[in-house]
Amino acid sequence: MTVLPSSPSSEPHSPGAPEPDIALAERLFEELRRRTGTSRGITRISYGLGEQIAHDIVGREARRMGMRTAMDAGGNLYLTLPGRASNPSVVIGSHLDSVPFGGNFDGAAGVLAGLAVAAGYRRAGIVPPQDLVVMAVRAEESTWFGASYVGSRSAFGQLTVAELDTVRRAGDEVSLGTAIDAAGGDTRQLREGLAFLDRAKVGCFIEPHIEQGPVLLAKGCPVGVVTGIRGSFRYRSATCTGTYSHSGATPRAYRNDAVLACARLVAQLDDRWQSLLAEDHELTVTFGQLSTDPHEAAFSKVAGRVDFSLDVRSQSRATLNLMHDALARSVDALSKELGVRFDLGPMTNSEPALMDRKVIEALADLATEQDVTAEIMPCGAGHDAAVFASMGIPTGMLFIRNENGSHNPDEAMNIADFAVAARILSAFCLRPLSRLS
Amino acid sequence: MTVLPSSPSSEPHSPGAPEPDIALAERLFEELRRRTGTSRGITRISYGLGEQIAHDIVGREARRMGMRTAMDAGGNLYLTLPGRASNPSVVIGSHLDSVPFGGNFDGAAGVLAGLAVAAGYRRAGIVPPQDLVVMAVRAEESTWFGASYVGSRSAFGQLTVAELDTVRRAGDEVSLGTAIDAAGGDTRQLREGLAFLDRAKVGCFIEPHIEQGPVLLAKGCPVGVVTGIRGSFRYRSATCTGTYSHSGATPRAYRNDAVLACARLVAQLDDRWQSLLAEDHELTVTFGQLSTDPHEAAFSKVAGRVDFSLDVRSQSRATLNLMHDALARSVDALSKELGVRFDLGPMTNSEPALMDRKVIEALADLATEQDVTAEIMPCGAGHDAAVFASMGIPTGMLFIRNENGSHNPDEAMNIADFAVAARILSAFCLRPLSRLS
Repeated sequence: MTVLPSSPSSEPHSPGAPEPDIALAERLFEELRRRTGTSRGITRISYGLGEQIAHDIVGREARRMGMRTAMDAGGNLYLTLPGRASNPSVVIGSHLDSVPFGGNFDGAAGVLAGLAVAAGYRRAGIVPPQDLVVMAVRAEESTWFGASYVGSRSAFGQLTVAELDTVRRAGDEVSLGTAIDAAGGDTRQLREGLAFLDRAKVGCFIEPHIEQGPVLLAKGCPVGVVTGIRGSFRYRSATCTGTYSHSGATPRAYRNDAVLACARLVAQLDDRWQSLLAEDHELTVTFGQLSTDPHEAAFSKVAGRVDFSLDVRSQSRATLNLMHDALARSVDALSKELGVRFDLGPMTNSEPALMDRKVIEALADLATEQDVTAEIMPCGAGHDAAVFASMGIPTGMLFIRNENGSHNPDEAMNIADFAVAARILSAFCLRPLSRLS
Repeated sequence: MTVLPSSPSSEPHSPGAPEPDIALAERLFEELRRRTGTSRGITRISYGLGEQIAHDIVGREARRMGMRTAMDAGGNLYLTLPGRASNPSVVIGSHLDSVPFGGNFDGAAGVLAGLAVAAGYRRAGIVPPQDLVVMAVRAEESTWFGASYVGSRSAFGQLTVAELDTVRRAGDEVSLGTAIDAAGGDTRQLREGLAFLDRAKVGCFIEPHIEQGPVLLAKGCPVGVVTGIRGSFRYRSATCTGTYSHSGATPRAYRNDAVLACARLVAQLDDRWQSLLAEDHELTVTFGQLSTDPHEAAFSKVAGRVDFSLDVRSQSRATLNLMHDALARSVDALSKELGVRFDLGPMTNSEPALMDRKVIEALADLATEQDVTAEIMPCGAGHDAAVFASMGIPTGMLFIRNENGSHNPDEAMNIADFAVAARILSAFCLRPLSRLS
């Protein structure tokens, strides 16, 4: 285990904002890596062993520095450094679970950034203007229970009885309710819809998180301020049906070619994507899976069937609707033109969650004060911050530059970039919340 | 077994050309179906049981009507009705093997058409101006040995020693040489490259065959006269490699999307196909297989890899080259534009084989004389006729209308259309070959 020296106090930071305890964070990242590591990367199962180890580690450190700790009925952990006024508080949080064979920073970086800020205050003997709460959220990775934002929704009493009883964990098939109780939660309260968090008492929620895309790396920015979390519409199991026919004996006019129809669809939606980008819309359009039938297709047959998926994301419901219109038009026109049939299958939806304008401005201003170039950018992946934003709580996200994407063992966050984010947060939490409203 | 009455002699046919024995053909189709049938369709394995049964049936019928029979070293069967002059002869032939679970007419229709013509001559007491040879070709379906035109090439001494020893039959892995000897052939002669057929003694070769595409059905023509057998270039295992990345977190500019690159390639080659058709080129362009990786691709990932196949066919080498140029241009441009890498893998080629202009005219004229509208059309699939054409023998093909394509149990040839083809052949074989040259 390598412990690098913490950044010296000569590093630039806002006047009066104490230097976060980066050495503590490094030590905890290393302990997490060691204790939740597998043959490849780390695994911290939602309400499972690896997540519990992570919660135990951050709880232990909070108690060491004299923070108050509390756990809610959903098993989320709250580590509080009392402020001059107790409410409303600033909550810094993210999740501590991971995908199987994932990376060490996805989620954990947000919790450790909060702890590093609190430890910096403690070391400098500074009491923030309001309570600073570091929140370790449970069960954010939907790969385990196939449900979104389990932990943060539980904090607001939003889990349904049906979810608790019927949703089961990939691998061991344990029900969500059983898993929560096993981790020390209390599903009796959750079944009654009791909220632990009172939105009136949460002055703002900030989720620091590694970026899961390549933008900060490409732009040369250590951090990014998120403008909103993209909503989506998705067709996970769409099909295009044509007619299998002889590749050499079937002239173009007599074909019903499912590959051609899908290729035209992909190209047309990409054209529309480009035109929307040119009009300053922001969105992503992805056909991640697209396949002819592995048994029936042959190099000498016109393809009679293609299965595909489509994932469209945007911060703007209006933009999502524009792209859905384009999809419907293309599907209709291609069906007629090429004699194929599209069956898009069930659509799933998620709503965009905009980050708070004043939080965005505050984070961006603090970055500027610290001579840091922060990219102002949308977030394409789902995060617990979306739940807080949906509750009407002023919410922000601070992205940390990261190489190789996330959800894999190769994610690579530089600790210097983590320190940049922590310093911005250290300054942010010293501001009275009244300056946000 | 249903035996329909043979066509009455009042049916229209060329003056002097005897009515072919359609009832005989129907009886033999029925016997073939019964004796080579399986749970689904028929199966006549190359040099295997089903093919042997078919050879035995047509050999028996030829002997019954007093035709001379001979077998060559490759196991091909020659059924000869002597003419007024013996050489050069007119050969009518096709293959008697089938794909697994195939249809009863693919191949067999050509041999039975020749037999029906010969039986018609016998019944009418007519001696043709030259020998009429009905040829039952072995092993045309490359699904069994993965080699093209095994039987017809063996007749010209063109099989290589390497093929005989190393090519093995799908299923039982018997080598081609062993299979030929087991069926009564003589691989010692084949190893020496000895030809059974002397191209100077084959005045012309006609292959009647069911159409494997939908053109005759769509055009309302019972028969088609083939202008040429399309050659091809094929990439059976091409790959496009991009970069897997997060569908929501990766903006368009930072993607290397293998699905988008392949979709653009398919669309661009389809555009080029349409422009070449507009300039009176004839060709087909088929991406029959196209698939993201079943293990790595996900609906929430930009695709990092697509595997695909491409099959381009045309009667014209120049047209094939034009389409290959378009492929190279698109691959090059898309690689640069989208940051992907195409690896097309090995290319396989076959040369176009043009049918003889005078044979085409003669068959078309005879159709007209019989008030039959024959479509003049290219042939997209490979046939033994290509081997005869490549030997410089005047060669033609007569297509018979057929529903549902071929290589499946649902192929559906109407016996009335078969009779139309047989009548044209009956008239054709009465013409002295000198009228072709």
